[in-house]
Amino acid sequence: MELLDRINKANDIKNIDQKDYKKLAWEIRQFIVNYVSRTGGHLASNLGVVELTMALHLCCDFPSDEIVWDVGHQSYTHKILTGRKEDFSSLRQYGGMSGFPKRSESDCDVFDTGHSSTSISAALGLAKARDISGGNQKIFAVIGDGALSGGMAYEALNNAARLKSNLVIVLNDNQMSISGNVGGMSSYLGRIRTNNNYTGLKEDVEKVLKKMPHIGKALTGSIRGFKDVIKRILIPGMLFEDMGLTYVGPIDGHDIKQMVSAFKSASKMKEAVIVHVRTKKGRGYMPAEKDPATFHGVAPFFVRDGSVRSKAADKDTYTDIFGRKIVQLADKNEKITAVSAAMPIGTGLSLMAEKYPDRFFDVGIAEEHAVTFAAGMAAGGLHPVVAVYSTFLQRAYDQILHDVCMCRLPVVFAVDRAGIVGSDGETHQGIFDIAFMNSMPNLTIIAPKNAWELENMLEWAISYDAPVAIRYPRGNACMDFSEHKEPVRYRTGEWLIRGKDIVLLAVGSMVKTAMQVHDALKEYELDVSVVNMRFISPIDYNILQEVCYNHDIVITLEEGIITGGFGENVMRWYNEEGDCDMRVYCIGLPDDFIEHGAVDLLKRKYGISSECIVDSILKLMGIE
Amino acid sequence: MELLDRINKANDIKNIDQKDYKKLAWEIRQFIVNYVSRTGGHLASNLGVVELTMALHLCCDFPSDEIVWDVGHQSYTHKILTGRKEDFSSLRQYGGMSGFPKRSESDCDVFDTGHSSTSISAALGLAKARDISGGNQKIFAVIGDGALSGGMAYEALNNAARLKSNLVIVLNDNQMSISGNVGGMSSYLGRIRTNNNYTGLKEDVEKVLKKMPHIGKALTGSIRGFKDVIKRILIPGMLFEDMGLTYVGPIDGHDIKQMVSAFKSASKMKEAVIVHVRTKKGRGYMPAEKDPATFHGVAPFFVRDGSVRSKAADKDTYTDIFGRKIVQLADKNEKITAVSAAMPIGTGLSLMAEKYPDRFFDVGIAEEHAVTFAAGMAAGGLHPVVAVYSTFLQRAYDQILHDVCMCRLPVVFAVDRAGIVGSDGETHQGIFDIAFMNSMPNLTIIAPKNAWELENMLEWAISYDAPVAIRYPRGNACMDFSEHKEPVRYRTGEWLIRGKDIVLLAVGSMVKTAMQVHDALKEYELDVSVVNMRFISPIDYNILQEVCYNHDIVITLEEGIITGGFGENVMRWYNEEGDCDMRVYCIGLPDDFIEHGAVDLLKRKYGISSECIVDSILKLMGIE
Repeated sequence: MELLDRINKANDIKNIDQKDYKKLAWEIRQFIVNYVSRTGGHLASNLGVVELTMALHLCCDFPSDEIVWDVGHQSYTHKILTGRKEDFSSLRQYGGMSGFPKRSESDCDVFDTGHSSTSISAALGLAKARDISGGNQKIFAVIGDGALSGGMAYEALNNAARLKSNLVIVLNDNQMSISGNVGGMSSYLGRIRTNNNYTGLKEDVEKVLKKMPHIGKALTGSIRGFKDVIKRILIPGMLFEDMGLTYVGPIDGHDIKQMVSAFKSASKMKEAVIVHVRTKKGRGYMPAEKDPATFHGVAPFFVRDGSVRSKAADKDTYTDIFGRKIVQLADKNEKITAVSAAMPIGTGLSLMAEKYPDRFFDVGIAEEHAVTFAAGMAAGGLHPVVAVYSTFLQRAYDQILHDVCMCRLPVVFAVDRAGIVGSDGETHQGIFDIAFMNSMPNLTIIAPKNAWELENMLEWAISYDAPVAIRYPRGNACMDFSEHKEPVRYRTGEWLIRGKDIVLLAVGSMVKTAMQVHDALKEYELDVSVVNMRFISPIDYNILQEVCYNHDIVITLEEGIITGGFGENVMRWYNEEGDCDMRVYCIGLPDDFIEHGAVDLLKRKYGISSECIVDSILKLMGIE
Repeated sequence: MELLDRINKANDIKNIDQKDYKKLAWEIRQFIVNYVSRTGGHLASNLGVVELTMALHLCCDFPSDEIVWDVGHQSYTHKILTGRKEDFSSLRQYGGMSGFPKRSESDCDVFDTGHSSTSISAALGLAKARDISGGNQKIFAVIGDGALSGGMAYEALNNAARLKSNLVIVLNDNQMSISGNVGGMSSYLGRIRTNNNYTGLKEDVEKVLKKMPHIGKALTGSIRGFKDVIKRILIPGMLFEDMGLTYVGPIDGHDIKQMVSAFKSASKMKEAVIVHVRTKKGRGYMPAEKDPATFHGVAPFFVRDGSVRSKAADKDTYTDIFGRKIVQLADKNEKITAVSAAMPIGTGLSLMAEKYPDRFFDVGIAEEHAVTFAAGMAAGGLHPVVAVYSTFLQRAYDQILHDVCMCRLPVVFAVDRAGIVGSDGETHQGIFDIAFMNSMPNLTIIAPKNAWELENMLEWAISYDAPVAIRYPRGNACMDFSEHKEPVRYRTGEWLIRGKDIVLLAVGSMVKTAMQVHDALKEYELDVSVVNMRFISPIDYNILQEVCYNHDIVITLEEGIITGGFGENVMRWYNEEGDCDMRVYCIGLPDDFIEHGAVDLLKRKYGISSECIVDSILKLMGIE
């Protein structure tokens, strides 16, 4: 790594000889593959933008110049080039370097990202701040063609068109989201992507047209002038030009010289410019080039062939269970359709896509549309299931409330990755969904204790003629409690242990934790009760009333933020309605963003592991 | 009204002679102006689409064919033509007809709308439901050019491009949102709007080009074929065609014959078609034509000149107070910028726009972009203020949380129309903001008791280096409490009355209500305390502790949904932290959507008027 050894802080890349750029790119790829093979992380997207990032760094002075990385998982080369090489050994681990840009990590990270399609808005804000403050730094937004299917990217382009100073939007076109891209914009990019030689062609045609003044006039009579006509015929990015943006491209995203030249001239213009750059996801590492979707985000793997290091975990995840069950239900019920926002594999809907391609819809990175599109299908008599990660469902808050719940339309939300997700960190934790859905009228929110219950809940949700959200965590499905198979009924919880004095009212993933707490407390001669509440909202008040009989402490357990959560609702019922004097304590996550790290470790840190809960209860009882 | 008299149910319009269409349009306009002048409501947008709606009804069979009205406030003619004439006397009044489409009101209303830019998604869902169920009904989405700046409309267009069956998207281009439109898409529409005679031109050029085969070849060598080239030169809607949609237009939106023909042929195609129709907002009523922004939504007025009927209310609204104060603050602080999503007048930012045009940004109907754009400005060192109605802020849930709060960026949210808004009804009530913002880490939420306090809070918010949301209701600002002018300090409430036994902890608009309750309870020899909490989140725990001394009942008062609200947080503190045995009751709105009607009436119905609260307290005390 002789070249990389010379890069120890921002701007060091400028001391590298131009002839060595290829070698440096190779070293960076080696570095990324080596580290990610050990820690896991995002691979294919990072391998795709090595030259693009180098070219940007050759044009920028850090920290004054500013780059906003859309989504941000492609920022590894940027981290390497800004003095964070050493931190790669702790990538995405607790206390270590984040897998996303972080203002708290480096003054070369100007805006934190994680969710898609925010970069142009943020960069436009930075550009306006620069203009108002009289600065002159360069500002870049780097956005993938996948992220361009998100509506807010379009809202931002629509506004960028009015900017009277410079902003360079680098469209990193790799023809992929996590999986392949979809939609009109994607096919459009597909068409212009293949226009390699427009410059030469343009000159030819100009020559010919000049010789034919009669035609020239005919063409331009009612339109906009000769140059515009030629542009309209020949320039591939006319859609962007029509929106008022200047378009440059497409150019080869692995040709540093060409990109440096394009970025430099683009950053001298007095307007917002789109530079369209074609890259290859996974570039330079054969397994990732061949299968960029699988190598988008990876667990530790063997570099020699890309195979996963630890084969142990061949258990079913909740995602697997969901994916299989929804197909089984669709076999029997023709009204079931399924919607994904660019994550057919991640959400388990790829089986549905395979078996019922006409009843499966991947709408691209477009959660808002996904939900209202489902609402439309429900209004038309179908029973759609929208499968989405908890953190991304945040994008569709208004659509769930206004388009689904207001008319009580039968849409099922399969809320995957609900709770702590681990190494992706604070932008991806699924900890707000209970809090933001709890106050939505007409919405039923449920959570399964184990794999069997997820299946049963799905079946119930499809039979229920109103909106239902089912939340379940990332990772292996709980297979315990096989003796508890009472079918799900509306607003009805399930007794697991009938003890006394203290009752644990648990939802979803916390049911297993509650049982562990129960077992641990036996040693202290406490026989606590455990209820699997099943219904987060509306709450089963009968059980709340029932526990009054022989308990005086209720402890609620949820894997989500406490404020606005399930526990507060239980507490309010006891305070206002309950016919008994009950002390209620809520266990859940504090009002804070939760950093990256192993799930178990974070659960301990934030007090929702069984050990922590046992300690809390003992303290409460004055035992320890 | 001889023609209108013959229209008493859906499809009756088909019995009207073609020669009478103009007269019918005139009668409909008379009808709308007359009723809206008495009840108030949306005027300019409805006058603009009379012919457009008639043309749609001439092409459709109801209720089998389906129209989704974007935003929905332009659906009055649709209501008239579907048997709801008689209900106009109760328009937007409690128990009366809604000003928006409602499935519960008519089987000719297929999808409820209210928020912008949802129609294409919903219609696409309906189209898929039709295809899957084997139906053959026509489906239309009617969307304004203003609504087209919303990102989810673009997400939907992006997906509509893949539809292999029919959907007609009617682009109702009136060059306005509520105020004038902005952005790249808007200027694009402006350019193609003026292309009247493209059809004739197209034929001309085809002829000429056919005679010049050499040119034809040169042009088409590396591109896509002769026809595409001509299209690209001549057809105004090429941007949409580039996205994969078929474009027809622009056509005159007041020419019924032309529209019927266009809608009929568009609805026979096997794909999604955009029909671009130019209309004039306010058409046919001179005051509204002249000033469509003022006549967008109106209070009762005199038909003769459009002047407002009741001149009484010349008091300052909270919006006025905010609008003036933000300019005063901007005078002294160059870092202050202001952002509006298509509502400079409605939010009071027009003063700012006038005085500091370079520091004011109207981003169009694009709340998501508005918030992340502000986050970008804050990351760049400015202190932006985003002024938005509570109900529309829902669109930006993820952006507030992920782009502003996560990095603790200093953005001020001026949340107008928070609480019950009245006659716009359930789609527009600002009752969820406390619930959805309460659980956002790093966000401070405050609410003023009166006009002075709003000013003081704004000043404080701008001095505070983190995100702050200030919520205040629609309508006249409270001018009481002039003796209480203690400057706002972080996380500090304000004692208004020091009584005993019962303490009312009130936020925002409920402070005045709390004082009324206090006064009324004196008659019963109850001397209740009143605290203006000011901080909804984080709560002033010192006051919570302080009241323990001589109270045993806490009653929280908020104009918002109780679940996930301020009261539950107070309750949890007393349950878990408070060093006293306190009974806590939460007063606020129930878990339900709230219909349209006068604000005071709705407050009584839902139990948050002072009379209701007095009753509740007396009942609680066993007095009545």
